[in-house]
Amino acid sequence: MGSSFGTVFKLTTWGESHGPALGVVIEGCPAGIPLAVEDIQYELDRRRVGQSKVTSPRDEKDRAEMLSGVFEGVTTGAPISLITYNKDADSTKYENLRHVFRPGHGDYTYQMKYGHRDHRGGGRSSARETWGRVAAGAIARKILAAAGARVYGFTREIGGIEMETFDECEIERNLVRCPDPVAAGKMVDAIDRIKEEKNSLGGVVEARAVGIPVGLGEPTFDKLDALIGQAMLSIPATKGVEIGRGFAQSRLTGRESNDPFEIRNGRVRTTSNNAGGSLAGLSTGEEIIVRVGIKPTSSIEQDQSTITSDLEPATVKVVGRHDPCVVPRAVPVVEAMLANVLADLYLRNRASRIDWPDQE
Amino acid sequence: MGSSFGTVFKLTTWGESHGPALGVVIEGCPAGIPLAVEDIQYELDRRRVGQSKVTSPRDEKDRAEMLSGVFEGVTTGAPISLITYNKDADSTKYENLRHVFRPGHGDYTYQMKYGHRDHRGGGRSSARETWGRVAAGAIARKILAAAGARVYGFTREIGGIEMETFDECEIERNLVRCPDPVAAGKMVDAIDRIKEEKNSLGGVVEARAVGIPVGLGEPTFDKLDALIGQAMLSIPATKGVEIGRGFAQSRLTGRESNDPFEIRNGRVRTTSNNAGGSLAGLSTGEEIIVRVGIKPTSSIEQDQSTITSDLEPATVKVVGRHDPCVVPRAVPVVEAMLANVLADLYLRNRASRIDWPDQE
Amino acid sequence: MGSSFGTVFKLTTWGESHGPALGVVIEGCPAGIPLAVEDIQYELDRRRVGQSKVTSPRDEKDRAEMLSGVFEGVTTGAPISLITYNKDADSTKYENLRHVFRPGHGDYTYQMKYGHRDHRGGGRSSARETWGRVAAGAIARKILAAAGARVYGFTREIGGIEMETFDECEIERNLVRCPDPVAAGKMVDAIDRIKEEKNSLGGVVEARAVGIPVGLGEPTFDKLDALIGQAMLSIPATKGVEIGRGFAQSRLTGRESNDPFEIRNGRVRTTSNNAGGSLAGLSTGEEIIVRVGIKPTSSIEQDQSTITSDLEPATVKVVGRHDPCVVPRAVPVVEAMLANVLADLYLRNRASRIDWPDQE
Amino acid sequence: MGSSFGTVFKLTTWGESHGPALGVVIEGCPAGIPLAVEDIQYELDRRRVGQSKVTSPRDEKDRAEMLSGVFEGVTTGAPISLITYNKDADSTKYENLRHVFRPGHGDYTYQMKYGHRDHRGGGRSSARETWGRVAAGAIARKILAAAGARVYGFTREIGGIEMETFDECEIERNLVRCPDPVAAGKMVDAIDRIKEEKNSLGGVVEARAVGIPVGLGEPTFDKLDALIGQAMLSIPATKGVEIGRGFAQSRLTGRESNDPFEIRNGRVRTTSNNAGGSLAGLSTGEEIIVRVGIKPTSSIEQDQSTITSDLEPATVKVVGRHDPCVVPRAVPVVEAMLANVLADLYLRNRASRIDWPDQE
Repeated sequence: MGSSFGTVFKLTTWGESHGPALGVVIEGCPAGIPLAVEDIQYELDRRRVGQSKVTSPRDEKDRAEMLSGVFEGVTTGAPISLITYNKDADSTKYENLRHVFRPGHGDYTYQMKYGHRDHRGGGRSSARETWGRVAAGAIARKILAAAGARVYGFTREIGGIEMETFDECEIERNLVRCPDPVAAGKMVDAIDRIKEEKNSLGGVVEARAVGIPVGLGEPTFDKLDALIGQAMLSIPATKGVEIGRGFAQSRLTGRESNDPFEIRNGRVRTTSNNAGGSLAGLSTGEEIIVRVGIKPTSSIEQDQSTITSDLEPATVKVVGRHDPCVVPRAVPVVEAMLANVLADLYLRNRASRIDWPDQE
Repeated sequence: MGSSFGTVFKLTTWGESHGPALGVVIEGCPAGIPLAVEDIQYELDRRRVGQSKVTSPRDEKDRAEMLSGVFEGVTTGAPISLITYNKDADSTKYENLRHVFRPGHGDYTYQMKYGHRDHRGGGRSSARETWGRVAAGAIARKILAAAGARVYGFTREIGGIEMETFDECEIERNLVRCPDPVAAGKMVDAIDRIKEEKNSLGGVVEARAVGIPVGLGEPTFDKLDALIGQAMLSIPATKGVEIGRGFAQSRLTGRESNDPFEIRNGRVRTTSNNAGGSLAGLSTGEEIIVRVGIKPTSSIEQDQSTITSDLEPATVKVVGRHDPCVVPRAVPVVEAMLANVLADLYLRNRASRIDWPDQE
Repeated sequence: MGSSFGTVFKLTTWGESHGPALGVVIEGCPAGIPLAVEDIQYELDRRRVGQSKVTSPRDEKDRAEMLSGVFEGVTTGAPISLITYNKDADSTKYENLRHVFRPGHGDYTYQMKYGHRDHRGGGRSSARETWGRVAAGAIARKILAAAGARVYGFTREIGGIEMETFDECEIERNLVRCPDPVAAGKMVDAIDRIKEEKNSLGGVVEARAVGIPVGLGEPTFDKLDALIGQAMLSIPATKGVEIGRGFAQSRLTGRESNDPFEIRNGRVRTTSNNAGGSLAGLSTGEEIIVRVGIKPTSSIEQDQSTITSDLEPATVKVVGRHDPCVVPRAVPVVEAMLANVLADLYLRNRASRIDWPDQE
Repeated sequence: MGSSFGTVFKLTTWGESHGPALGVVIEGCPAGIPLAVEDIQYELDRRRVGQSKVTSPRDEKDRAEMLSGVFEGVTTGAPISLITYNKDADSTKYENLRHVFRPGHGDYTYQMKYGHRDHRGGGRSSARETWGRVAAGAIARKILAAAGARVYGFTREIGGIEMETFDECEIERNLVRCPDPVAAGKMVDAIDRIKEEKNSLGGVVEARAVGIPVGLGEPTFDKLDALIGQAMLSIPATKGVEIGRGFAQSRLTGRESNDPFEIRNGRVRTTSNNAGGSLAGLSTGEEIIVRVGIKPTSSIEQDQSTITSDLEPATVKVVGRHDPCVVPRAVPVVEAMLANVLADLYLRNRASRIDWPDQE
């Protein structure tokens, strides 16, 4: 009862990690947008595992099929259904996890909520569900492109190592998607070390949106910030989200915090952007800046104390090809969710004003 | 088009800072709950301005009227309408702000979105809208009480001064609602100083929920964390939210981060609570822990650079009785929104399982 | 949990027949519409009881207060709250109905659903709740007016007496709002007779919308027909709804039923309008035609067999000033709900297409 | 933006008549229900074309695949995705319809709304979309079965020939699903004749629900009647819906119309059931009775006047294997939508009351 996100541009994901298939239905995509399955596959490939040595070597064969909503290469306004089959997923290796609750995972909470769960690879709680979010995000990006806007993202921090320089061109040039090549090198080393220790690392992803029109956001509960909060904290393994300066802004004074308005190049701008592109929950036209804290991968190949579903003490070691650090792969997911929020608010915003006919 | 929050327990707020009245309609409150307007007024009084020297001296006379949904002292299942009239609000003093955009406020973004706005005291974007959230939260608390759960909150940090000790009993004993009386003293001093400088401070509020049943949260977009994210970032002046260890968890290893399960006093527990009471977006039964970053008050009585609605450069000084620090007053709002999320998820959770009749 | 209607233009009603007040919150009304409380009061007065000898002589004093969402005479995009206080409602006369279930009313079903109910005048199930629907409808009409569309309605049938001629100008000239003055006379006589017999009559209301743009309706569940179905069957005492020829169309052949397209006066038209202005759930640009069956008033001052809340057999006679026929008063309610549906679909339709930028 | 139906038990359909596949995602099905794809296929086969000489001879091979939400034969609470591939659909025969608007179909309205449409077999507006509704209905029936309730339906009238006797056992024994075998014979003859004339017939379907608990329905807009109204009028080719006596009840007096309460076999019952199992929008525990008017098939192999998309006059003859009367095939669709409404309200109803703990 919570598998949908969005009001006008609405996505509904379905599927389990080791079920026959998984997918997403996107409602509310306007008619008239050129859309090919390759547009979507491009983003899916950025999310896919097995991209590099720092991520899982498993090949999920995330090939998308587009089954509806597009006719002769253009969207029709009907729901767009995207699906990928889970080929070759070997679930026998999860048999030993059937009756044991892995720490840091949803095994225990799902068992308690539903009384019955698909234990294979996390089932519904698996990060594999983000496939559909990224697929929808590719369509959201198309909608935003029509408005002249785009979204991008990068790794800001891994294992406590923070980027110090920013060059957007560097992002996709290194394994960890960090805009600072020096920091990227340190991050890769840190991941290599933690992998040997059969442990894992977390980090911080940042996403930004450029060219967003002023006024996106629906007061008071569907403010831009609020929907970003929901979107980001619905991604597996996330534990925090910030807009603009975020928590650091709490330590400024009002004088330092307020972004003064000015006219720059003929447009209304702010001289600083502490607010991260949002005032009173509406976009300001400045760059939207979001940071998301990702916890370290819960699956580690070490003995951990836990209990069984019969409430007996047990030890569990999670064997398998898990990412020692999911942060680089989380980048396209965070971007996609930001795009999904913005596309929805962009379409919703069309209803915010009416031109009242002159009273002659 | 975003004035409602919640799916089963749903609140809809309405009203502007300087309009005739404001209020909230609460749908989906179950029948059978004893409810008096005093239960609600108690929480409203905690939110009210003019409670102390560190908050605004204005008396908003936030008296609630309860106009529906309760019959002979017990809820009927019908929507509950709560209203408060804005008495004596002097809006003439806002006349000079009619054509100028205050930095840090929604003046510019509202003007651009709607083309027409109520400039008096922020209109719809005013924090006065939180009246309805707190009123609804008082009812949400009643629902949670039936499940044996409760919510509380406190100030964790103001102006960079962080609490170092925790005594729940201290919270309501000091002006800033800080559970560390020593830190509280420093915070009060800092607010006094900043007030003299006609500047303002921000801070961090923490809210916790105790006794929450296991399994609240609706995967995958209405996870407990996700709805907390939306709820908190819909509160005015918030710029960040964390669950459990939050961003700090991003700097741990998986080994350190995972909370091991154990049986303690006959119940399933975790030995630590880094996760802040939520795994895979469902409540674990441990204490739910949320932190919210609040930016410093945007209204400061200093000259600030800005522009007018005619796009001319201007200087604005925001005169009025504004809180130099809203953090202490944000505590009941953060608590209320956490209660609203939890009450909604508690009621939604009732639909998650079915007892299938035996097949004899 | 069902007190709201609409997706973009959304109304939420609250209040009980004999509570302190009742009202409606309208979300999603675009900014920029001139709106005065008199615009709303005009429609409310058409719905009010005590308008004539054929309706109840009670004076409900349905005076609306507009508490938010309008600034200096123009809508701001914020929710519009409308309220009316229930003055002088004497509920002591309902005391004898506290423990008995009136046939044809919701007393039994509400008691079973909620375990606790406001028995005074039907409480939440009273037709008095339609006050808010009519108030919202007045605003919906404004939105439609901006699109050049309008809604009107009339009594088609009372007590089996059907209109035979149609003159729109006659509608508001007679007590029963019938466009056929001869039939109107017979209807009034029939109501007079049934009133003497302490019995009641039902009838059929028709509403039409003129000037509606082509393409309103959201396939496949929020089709124009589907939302009209929900809207009409949510009105108290309704038991049937038809679009266009309705059930009579079931008895035609395909040849007779299909409306051929033609170009007339330079516009695409159909030569007939069996479909009632809707094809495949989208408006065709032809007149939208809806008929609603209203059952006879359930409250009759005759002894009727029933049971008490202790499940004992009993006899109940419903004494009070009840309309012997609510059909004339239902006309503005049916109109309002049609306007509410159309305004919502009009605003939602704005998101159905996008202009893709040229690819030069 | 209208492809979903339901609040807790929510279905989202996708797919076009001649696209690669179509399907449905069902959210909110509780965990713990035994469910096999055969349970669903059974209902789908009842809906399928080519069942008899009175329906279309095309074999749609409506084989369902169940791709998620069920683990080891039992629902998990996760969304259930059902899909069927459109095999062998020959769309070349629709090429001549690319630029012409068929009377009675959605060609014109879709073209105007979206500017771009899949013209093959009606695309999204095809009745083929009801596949997903019937599939979801099979799951809804399971939920209702757990409450001891069931839904069934039948043909009440075709081409003006109405049933005169009722024997539930006869329904599935004749080609038209009529509980009166004599009327069934006449209906089959009428369909045979109209088929020879290359014309078509409509009719009336009735569905009933037995064993429904008292109190289902969510006042005031999601009343049982209101959601039935939406559900039924969202089915292609429907133009009217009635609950209980429906429009005929408008011609009764209040005395005749009201159903008296009594205690019968130890249960609260009404002596008659004019209301069709619903009072004030909540189920009474009596049989729920719904009738739906179906217009004659719009596709007829006769020359009809119309226009092209270039707004030129034209003649169109719709060649193909179309049902001369869809009423028998509409029976399982109407049943399914009634089941979908009731399952949703059944789950929503769980939130309507709370047991307040004793205050000892």
